[in-house]
Amino acid sequence: MAGASGYAGGELLRLLLAHPDVEIGTLTAGGNAGTRLGEHQPHLAPLADRVLAETTAESLAGHDAVFLALPHGRSAELAAQLGGDTLVIDCGADHRLTDPAAWDRWYGGEHAGHWPYGLPELPGARERLVGASRVAVPGCYPTGISLALFPALVAGLVEPDVVVTAVTGTSGAGKSLKPHLLGAEVMGSLSAYGVGGVHRHTPEIAQNLSAALGSPVSVSFTPVLAPLPRGILASCSAPLADPATDTATVRQAYEKAYAGEPFVRLLGEGQWPTTAQTLGSNLVALQLTVDPDARRLVVVSAIDNLTKGTAGGAVQCMNLALGLPETTGLPTTGVAP
Amino acid sequence: MAGASGYAGGELLRLLLAHPDVEIGTLTAGGNAGTRLGEHQPHLAPLADRVLAETTAESLAGHDAVFLALPHGRSAELAAQLGGDTLVIDCGADHRLTDPAAWDRWYGGEHAGHWPYGLPELPGARERLVGASRVAVPGCYPTGISLALFPALVAGLVEPDVVVTAVTGTSGAGKSLKPHLLGAEVMGSLSAYGVGGVHRHTPEIAQNLSAALGSPVSVSFTPVLAPLPRGILASCSAPLADPATDTATVRQAYEKAYAGEPFVRLLGEGQWPTTAQTLGSNLVALQLTVDPDARRLVVVSAIDNLTKGTAGGAVQCMNLALGLPETTGLPTTGVAP
Amino acid sequence: MAGASGYAGGELLRLLLAHPDVEIGTLTAGGNAGTRLGEHQPHLAPLADRVLAETTAESLAGHDAVFLALPHGRSAELAAQLGGDTLVIDCGADHRLTDPAAWDRWYGGEHAGHWPYGLPELPGARERLVGASRVAVPGCYPTGISLALFPALVAGLVEPDVVVTAVTGTSGAGKSLKPHLLGAEVMGSLSAYGVGGVHRHTPEIAQNLSAALGSPVSVSFTPVLAPLPRGILASCSAPLADPATDTATVRQAYEKAYAGEPFVRLLGEGQWPTTAQTLGSNLVALQLTVDPDARRLVVVSAIDNLTKGTAGGAVQCMNLALGLPETTGLPTTGVAP
Amino acid sequence: MAGASGYAGGELLRLLLAHPDVEIGTLTAGGNAGTRLGEHQPHLAPLADRVLAETTAESLAGHDAVFLALPHGRSAELAAQLGGDTLVIDCGADHRLTDPAAWDRWYGGEHAGHWPYGLPELPGARERLVGASRVAVPGCYPTGISLALFPALVAGLVEPDVVVTAVTGTSGAGKSLKPHLLGAEVMGSLSAYGVGGVHRHTPEIAQNLSAALGSPVSVSFTPVLAPLPRGILASCSAPLADPATDTATVRQAYEKAYAGEPFVRLLGEGQWPTTAQTLGSNLVALQLTVDPDARRLVVVSAIDNLTKGTAGGAVQCMNLALGLPETTGLPTTGVAP
Repeated sequence: MAGASGYAGGELLRLLLAHPDVEIGTLTAGGNAGTRLGEHQPHLAPLADRVLAETTAESLAGHDAVFLALPHGRSAELAAQLGGDTLVIDCGADHRLTDPAAWDRWYGGEHAGHWPYGLPELPGARERLVGASRVAVPGCYPTGISLALFPALVAGLVEPDVVVTAVTGTSGAGKSLKPHLLGAEVMGSLSAYGVGGVHRHTPEIAQNLSAALGSPVSVSFTPVLAPLPRGILASCSAPLADPATDTATVRQAYEKAYAGEPFVRLLGEGQWPTTAQTLGSNLVALQLTVDPDARRLVVVSAIDNLTKGTAGGAVQCMNLALGLPETTGLPTTGVAP
Repeated sequence: MAGASGYAGGELLRLLLAHPDVEIGTLTAGGNAGTRLGEHQPHLAPLADRVLAETTAESLAGHDAVFLALPHGRSAELAAQLGGDTLVIDCGADHRLTDPAAWDRWYGGEHAGHWPYGLPELPGARERLVGASRVAVPGCYPTGISLALFPALVAGLVEPDVVVTAVTGTSGAGKSLKPHLLGAEVMGSLSAYGVGGVHRHTPEIAQNLSAALGSPVSVSFTPVLAPLPRGILASCSAPLADPATDTATVRQAYEKAYAGEPFVRLLGEGQWPTTAQTLGSNLVALQLTVDPDARRLVVVSAIDNLTKGTAGGAVQCMNLALGLPETTGLPTTGVAP
Repeated sequence: MAGASGYAGGELLRLLLAHPDVEIGTLTAGGNAGTRLGEHQPHLAPLADRVLAETTAESLAGHDAVFLALPHGRSAELAAQLGGDTLVIDCGADHRLTDPAAWDRWYGGEHAGHWPYGLPELPGARERLVGASRVAVPGCYPTGISLALFPALVAGLVEPDVVVTAVTGTSGAGKSLKPHLLGAEVMGSLSAYGVGGVHRHTPEIAQNLSAALGSPVSVSFTPVLAPLPRGILASCSAPLADPATDTATVRQAYEKAYAGEPFVRLLGEGQWPTTAQTLGSNLVALQLTVDPDARRLVVVSAIDNLTKGTAGGAVQCMNLALGLPETTGLPTTGVAP
Repeated sequence: MAGASGYAGGELLRLLLAHPDVEIGTLTAGGNAGTRLGEHQPHLAPLADRVLAETTAESLAGHDAVFLALPHGRSAELAAQLGGDTLVIDCGADHRLTDPAAWDRWYGGEHAGHWPYGLPELPGARERLVGASRVAVPGCYPTGISLALFPALVAGLVEPDVVVTAVTGTSGAGKSLKPHLLGAEVMGSLSAYGVGGVHRHTPEIAQNLSAALGSPVSVSFTPVLAPLPRGILASCSAPLADPATDTATVRQAYEKAYAGEPFVRLLGEGQWPTTAQTLGSNLVALQLTVDPDARRLVVVSAIDNLTKGTAGGAVQCMNLALGLPETTGLPTTGVAP
C-alpha cells in the first residue's frame, strides 16, 4: 500500500488487519519513508514496527492488490508501471472523472483516464467492478450524496436540480498542516468552504447523478467543516416533479433501489441518521421526507468519510474485484457513543 | 428577569452585567426558584449569591424592563399582568408569529398576538422597536437566515424559493435533559432533526422573508446538530432570477442593505464566516457567491445563537426601546480560538 | 444480557456481534423494556429490530452466559436466581469489593459478596477466572490505574503511596440525564469531581494494588471529566523507593510483568499514550519515566473506558471462563483518528 | 504589540479593545508581516483592516506600553532596544526564571535576566509590579498551579512536595503547525506530554512556590492535552504536614490568602471548578479538600490559559505598572456554556 502514514492509509490498514483473506504486504510513504508505522498510526498496534518503504513501482510490485492513498496527480504514473495482473485501487482522484475537460477545469493538467468507479450501489457499477483490475475509489462526499439522491432521480420523482449542504469532520482534509485545521481553530467552530460549486467533488457528484439519470443533473454543493474527526452528514434536496408526491411513494422507490444492498440502511420512519452510528463502519444511513410546503424532497445521509467514504469502499471494491464475498471484513456496526 | 437559570437567561445576565446603563434587578426561575444563581450559572461570578425568586408577575413588577426567557406558551399570561409602562422583552416564541393560523399549526393552541419583531436589521423593523414597550425576540435560526437572504430577495436578484441547511451547537436546545443532548451522544456526531419543514422556526423565516419581499417566499429548512456549544452556520441558497447575475452585483446589494449596520459584517472577498469569530459577540458574519453552473446564489451566515441569536439581540432591542444608543454594552469581538 | 439500552450494554453487543463463538440471546432493559434496540443503539444495525424484554431472572434464564450491565445494587438479587451453571458476568459494582465494611462505606447497605475479579492481568487473577461461573468486571478507572501501577509496587521500586489524576470521557457516567452531562456543558470544559478520595473507584484501586503488593497501598485519586465520548488517560505517580532508580530499571520490571500479555502495550521509548489509539479496542497503552528531580516514578496509561474498561474486559473474562482463547473477538486496533 | 497574529496576541487585542484607557498602536508580526490582521484574527472585527508591521524596535518605538507575544528567545534583544521609559510586558519565557542555571538547563543558552514576575497574587509580587517598566508574564500552567498551592505551603499545612497533573486545551501550544495539534488528532483523544519533569514550566512552578515558602519545594508536574480550545484544570496535591488537619482549617488559610483579590474565587463548599466558568475571563476558580485516607490536601484550579493564563494577566500587570485600577478592562464573567 502506498500512503500508509496518512488518514486514508491508516483506515485501510485497520480494515485489512481484520480481513480474513488479506495478508498485508509492503507499506510505503512519501516524506515518512524510513520511519516506523507506529510513529504515525499508533492505533495500529499489530503493525507498529513495520518500516515504511519509498513509494515506487518496485516496492509495490509483486502484490495481488495495491492500494494507492496518494495526493491527486500521483497515481497515474505509478499505476502505469504496475502490471495489469495487479489489482490497483486508487483512493485518490486521478481516475474518477470521465470527462477530460472536467478534469482540466477542476484539477488542472492532463487527464489520466477513468477507471471503473468504485461505488457498487450505483446503477450498473457493481458489474463493472467484478473482476476489474483497476478501481477508482469515489470521493467521500460523492459517496454519501450520490447514494442519497440517485434513487429519486432515477424514479423520476424529483427535478434534476439538487441542492446539497454536507457537513464533515476534519479528517477529510487529510493530515495537512494548515492553520485552519488546528484543533484550537476547529473545536467550537463551524465554517463553510469551497462554496459556490468550486469544491472538486462537485463534478463527481454531477457525473454520478447524471449517469444514473441518463441526462444532466444540476448540483449546488456547499461543504461545511464541523468539530469532529470523522463523519459526513449530507442534507440533500430537490424539487418534487409532482407536488402531490408523498413520502411513502418516495420511500418505496428507495426500498426498491436498495433491496439487498448490505451497506445501505434506510432507517425506520421518524429516525434520522447520525454520523456516530456509522463510525468505523461501512454503512450508509439514510432517511427522507417530503416537504409539502416547499414542494421538495429532502434526503439525509450519514457515512464515515474514512470508512465507507474511502477505505471501506475501497475494500468493498477489492472484494468484488478479487471475487470474494462483497462484505468480507467490513464492519456493519458503528463505534458509539 | 424570568428564566435566569437557563442558557438564554445566563447569556442575558452576562451581557447585562457589562452594560453600563443597566442595574440587574430580580431574577426568577421555575423549578430552580429558591436556589442560588451560582449553582446554575457558575460563570456569572458577580451574581453567584443571588437567590432566584418564583416567576410571578409580582416578583417581576417594578422594573423598567423585564426579560422573559421562558418555554413557549408561558410569556403571554405573564406579560398581560405587567403594566404597559414596563418594557417586556420576550425571548420565547409566543409573540413572534403574526398569523394565528400559523401559530396554531406550528405551536398549537390560541395565539397570544404579535409584538414588534426584534430584528432591527430587517426592513422597517428598527422603526417599530424605537420606544416600543413590547418586543418579540426572534428565534436563533431566523436571525441568521433572514439576514442572509432578505437583501437578495428584496433586490429581486433571486427567486422566492430558498433552500437552507443550518448547522447549530447544542445550547440552542436549552438545558433540556434529553438523551440525544448528552455529551457522549453529541460529541463525535452530526445529526439532522426537524427535517421537511417541521421545525418551528420555518414559518418564522418565511414570515420574515415574505414580509421583506411583499409576497410569499417558499422556505425549505433543514437544521443539523453539531458538536459545539454555541454557533449557527447557515448555508442558504436560491435560484438566480437572471442566470447572468454575477457575484459583484449581489455584493453591492448586500453592501447597500447593510450600510451602517453595526452588527452585520459582510466579510472581505474570499473570506468565509466561521462561528468562532462571532462567539459571545453580537455580530452576524456574512459571505456570498454566485454559482454559475447551478445558477444559484449561495449565502453563508454565522452567528452565536445565544448572543445575536437570542440575548444580544434582546439587549439590542432593549437599547432601541429605551432610547439608548443601539450598540451599548454589546460586544463586536468574538472570543476565539 | 441485562441493560442492553445503556452504554456498557451497547458496547458489549458491538463486541459480541463480532465474536465468532457467540450467539446473542435475550436482551433486557429496565425502563426501556418493550422498545426496539434500534431506538437506543442505532449503531448496532444488525440488532435494530430486537425488542427489549423486562430484566427478570426468567427472561435471562437458559443462556450459557449472562452479562449484567445494571446500576449498582441490582445485580446481586438477580444473580442469585440464575443457576450456578450459567456464567454470570456482572459489569456493575456489586461484587467487586472484598471487604463488606468498604462496601458499606462507599456504596451503603449490605454487601453482596465478592466474585472472581475480572482483570486477568493482575497477579493471580487469570487463574481464578478460568472456568469461573461468576465474574465481577472491574470499574473503568481501576482497570487503567491498577495496570499502570502494580508492576512497580510489586517490584519494590516505589513507595506504597500513589497519587493518580485520571481524565475521562463522559460515557463513563452512563446515559444519566444530569445537567452537567449535557453536551453544551461538557464541550469546551474540564471539571474535577469526586475529589478527595470520595469517588467509589478509590477503594477498588486500593484493593487491587494492596492485594498485588501484599500490604496496604495508599491511593490519592482525582477524576477529571473532559470533552470526549470515550477514553481514560491516567496520570499515576509514586515516590521512588530508591532515588537512584532509573527509567530503564523500571521499564524492565514492566516488560517482565507484561510479557505475553495480549492486551497490554508498553509503548516504545519516548512515545506517550493517547486514548485515541485505544478507541474501541481492548488495549491498555502504557508509558513510564522516572522524574529524578521529584524522585518519583510517573506512569501514564490509556484505555477505552467502554472497551477494555468495561465491555472488552467482560468479553475477555467470558473467554477465560468458557475456555475459549482469551483474545477471541477482541480488537487490538483502535479506531483513529 | 509584537506577535499580533498568534493566539496570545489575539487575546491581548480582544482585551485591549475593551479597555477604556488604551488606544491600540502598531501591530507587528514575524512571517505574517505585511498581511491584514483580519486574515489571522477574524474575531477581532474592529481591527480587521490593520496591516501588520515587521517586528522591529523601530516599529514598536514611541508607545507607552509594548506587549511582546513572541517565541522564547526573541524578547531580550528587542527589549534592550526599547527605552526604559516604555513599559515592556513580555508574554514569553525569556525573563521569568531568576536562576541562569535553570534557564540554561530548561531553555538552553544565555539567560536574559529576570524581570518583575507578573502574578500579582503571589506574596510580595504586586508591590514589585506597581510602577514597573518591565514585566515578565508567567506561563499559563504556573499561573493556575502556583495560585492553587502557595497558600497551603506558606501556612505550613502541607509538605513541600507537590504533585500536579494539569489538563489543558490546545491553544496553549500556539498556532504551531504540528501533526499532533491537528483537529482530527486532538478531538476524541487525551494525551500526556512533557512527562517526568521535562516540561519547561516545571522550574517556574518550583521557583514560585519555593520563593513563597522561603525554602525549596519539590514539584512533580504532568501536563495533559485535552480536546478543547482553551482552559487549564490543575489537579494539585501535597501530603498534609499534620494528618489531623481538616478541610475547614485549610479553607481558612485560602480565604485569608485571597481576601480582597479581585480575580481569585474560592468556590462555595462542594462546588468544583470548571474551565468553562472562566472562559474569556481573568478569573481563577479554586476548590480544595482534605483526603483523610491518603493524608493529602487536594486543590483544583481552573483558568483560561489565554486570559488569566497569558493576556489577561498581562493586562492586569499593565494596569498595575501604569497606575491604573488593577481590574480595569478585565472580565470577571466567563462565556458559558
